[in-house]
Amino acid sequence: MADKRGAEKPILVFQTDFTYAEGAVSSMYGVVKRVDRELEIFDGTHYIPQYDIWSASYRLLQSLEFWPEGTIYVSVVDPGVGTARRACVAKTASGHVVVTPDNGTLTHLARYVGIVEVREIDETVNRYPGTRGTSVFAGRDVFGYTAARLASGVISWEEVGPSYSVDDIVRLPMAEPAVADGVVSGIVDIIDPNFGNAWTNIPFSVFEEAGFAYGDLLRVCVTHAGETVLDACVPLCHSFGDVAPGELLAYTNELMNIAFTMNQSSIVERYGISYGSDWLVAFSRSAC
Amino acid sequence: MADKRGAEKPILVFQTDFTYAEGAVSSMYGVVKRVDRELEIFDGTHYIPQYDIWSASYRLLQSLEFWPEGTIYVSVVDPGVGTARRACVAKTASGHVVVTPDNGTLTHLARYVGIVEVREIDETVNRYPGTRGTSVFAGRDVFGYTAARLASGVISWEEVGPSYSVDDIVRLPMAEPAVADGVVSGIVDIIDPNFGNAWTNIPFSVFEEAGFAYGDLLRVCVTHAGETVLDACVPLCHSFGDVAPGELLAYTNELMNIAFTMNQSSIVERYGISYGSDWLVAFSRSAC
Amino acid sequence: MADKRGAEKPILVFQTDFTYAEGAVSSMYGVVKRVDRELEIFDGTHYIPQYDIWSASYRLLQSLEFWPEGTIYVSVVDPGVGTARRACVAKTASGHVVVTPDNGTLTHLARYVGIVEVREIDETVNRYPGTRGTSVFAGRDVFGYTAARLASGVISWEEVGPSYSVDDIVRLPMAEPAVADGVVSGIVDIIDPNFGNAWTNIPFSVFEEAGFAYGDLLRVCVTHAGETVLDACVPLCHSFGDVAPGELLAYTNELMNIAFTMNQSSIVERYGISYGSDWLVAFSRSAC
Repeated sequence: MADKRGAEKPILVFQTDFTYAEGAVSSMYGVVKRVDRELEIFDGTHYIPQYDIWSASYRLLQSLEFWPEGTIYVSVVDPGVGTARRACVAKTASGHVVVTPDNGTLTHLARYVGIVEVREIDETVNRYPGTRGTSVFAGRDVFGYTAARLASGVISWEEVGPSYSVDDIVRLPMAEPAVADGVVSGIVDIIDPNFGNAWTNIPFSVFEEAGFAYGDLLRVCVTHAGETVLDACVPLCHSFGDVAPGELLAYTNELMNIAFTMNQSSIVERYGISYGSDWLVAFSRSAC
Repeated sequence: MADKRGAEKPILVFQTDFTYAEGAVSSMYGVVKRVDRELEIFDGTHYIPQYDIWSASYRLLQSLEFWPEGTIYVSVVDPGVGTARRACVAKTASGHVVVTPDNGTLTHLARYVGIVEVREIDETVNRYPGTRGTSVFAGRDVFGYTAARLASGVISWEEVGPSYSVDDIVRLPMAEPAVADGVVSGIVDIIDPNFGNAWTNIPFSVFEEAGFAYGDLLRVCVTHAGETVLDACVPLCHSFGDVAPGELLAYTNELMNIAFTMNQSSIVERYGISYGSDWLVAFSRSAC
Repeated sequence: MADKRGAEKPILVFQTDFTYAEGAVSSMYGVVKRVDRELEIFDGTHYIPQYDIWSASYRLLQSLEFWPEGTIYVSVVDPGVGTARRACVAKTASGHVVVTPDNGTLTHLARYVGIVEVREIDETVNRYPGTRGTSVFAGRDVFGYTAARLASGVISWEEVGPSYSVDDIVRLPMAEPAVADGVVSGIVDIIDPNFGNAWTNIPFSVFEEAGFAYGDLLRVCVTHAGETVLDACVPLCHSFGDVAPGELLAYTNELMNIAFTMNQSSIVERYGISYGSDWLVAFSRSAC
């Protein structure tokens, strides 16, 4: 595809848990523009739930690969800011770059896309001048600043700081989908806090493997901490409008994974569904 | 006026009901940038109330014409995603372009600005490669992608897909303002969910026609489903600060229509006012 | 630092209390682009609390200086829109420009950065054509439009309108920090509505002057309207993670002022802390 103006300098995309309620995003973007007026900046989202590293990790998986190769994604969900956690820059197998605290943010990318190289940011050189007296805003002083300098060519990849093994990247524990005895099991990997959909880690291809097809009625069971949170029969549909408003359905989401929801309503709110490795989901044909 | 860099390529403005709570906007914008790095993208708003086609229609009327001619507005409030509703690209009499599901979004523009031409998006060619297995994210896969390709010149206007009659565009039922026996009647066309103002579909020119002038005390009655929601005497003012905080007033809003509110307070919350063709409003001099 | 593309034309950054709930921001930005397609626009924040001039003033202090010199910040928190308050353009000692109603927004910049020159916007020339019939949206019709024309070079600095004395700029009453008898006193200058931190107007250098050092246990007292809102002993830390989640701490924030909070929790919500000249804070070593 066409890739013209600025092709020489990567786009910067930012995701944080800062919201836009105060001046942090503005200060962070200002520093980028002080480094190089040519750089293009986009909001990934600044509404990651506070301190929620798992969500940050998932949002990178959801969006990163849709950006041009070379794009630098800055992800700052950083409950350990100012402590010993590493600040890093990682290169993915897809040709993208992520600048982030190495605190688990890279979990999904490492599993599904692949990290090919990682460097620890050397803050003795890569810190916004004049900010050594404060340790609480690495998004502005370290992550945004380093991303901007890397994008601009002020520093080379090697000048980020020392390389370390991709095996040493912090990864959160993560369950894998499985098929056994006609049951496809996995986890609720994330929810959509806006429309209220629940997204599993089960690829549609695993459903095909299990012999499930569009139009089938499937039993979906969600369990958490030993409790059954949802147990219902739902049709496997192409889209929401295939059932009446308020009715449940399963479908293939935009990452080609199985998701389930209610048409024009939030299954997440209705049933109190959350996400993570301890939110188990199972699909079968049993009793439907 | 000046119109220099990028004058050759239209700006893209996006409005949706996606919010910024998850990664959808980021993925959608990434695809635009994969099509052409040169394209400029702006947020119209991503906070249209969920599935609220009427609001989407109004927001286009409110903002579209303030952008340079040629600007492409992508509007995705799409409860029927993946079903038979048309995906379309429309040209307005003002020289702007709208890319949207044809589900009523064009109602206000068709009435107040005029649609001069419309084409159905041919998804056999205008769909982001590799996404045929999913039907739930047309914003990313069809609307954003098609808008980007059109803006970039990858496809021509004709290559959007087949033309159809502007008379076939889906329009929501819409009431017209009227003057009779000293009463000016209309509807609450929209509310401002932030400041809590209520905006009518009555142009200031109709007030002039009725003989109403700034400084007049006017009776405003809002009725819905046969119930009177508001019945009060309010001054017709130039701006909010012409009355004390908390007091009611009518005024001419930034689209030159009559609106009413409370100074520094929300009339919408205070009286439970909503909007649409069944929210009737009448102004008169009666008993004030 | 590098300062290449567009170095000739300033960046525009906007902060308002408009939110993104409706079409106001879009219309305002569209007008900028109608003036000059080359201009770059950034969101400062559109989530200043409604009518809160003090917060607008603080957010300028927080973010302005991180942007390149010459950047034009448009700040529209304007409860007096359409009344006699001045619309102005101010130049700061740091080489930045602010376009704003002169209603107190410049209070913090005047005190901490310095205003070197100010002009009243002459709306007989600097108003978006065709909007003389409406007085309620100066953000679009006056402030954004004037900022765009100034950035673009359509008007010169002198053509903004008549100069007036910087001594006549409206300033909100503001308390100063002080040290006496081992007590450092000041105000809660602002809160972070997202993470729930409380920021004082006391520079870290005043703590050093008072002999306070990292690791010290300090007593923090917050009083408002004669009531004690918070009275606790807290450690002076480098960052949040130096205490356990939920525990209180004081620290040096990103503006090098003293702040206090709870690690991964909101001290503002927990204790009902707000901000302004009547929110007094005192730090001492007494009884800790």
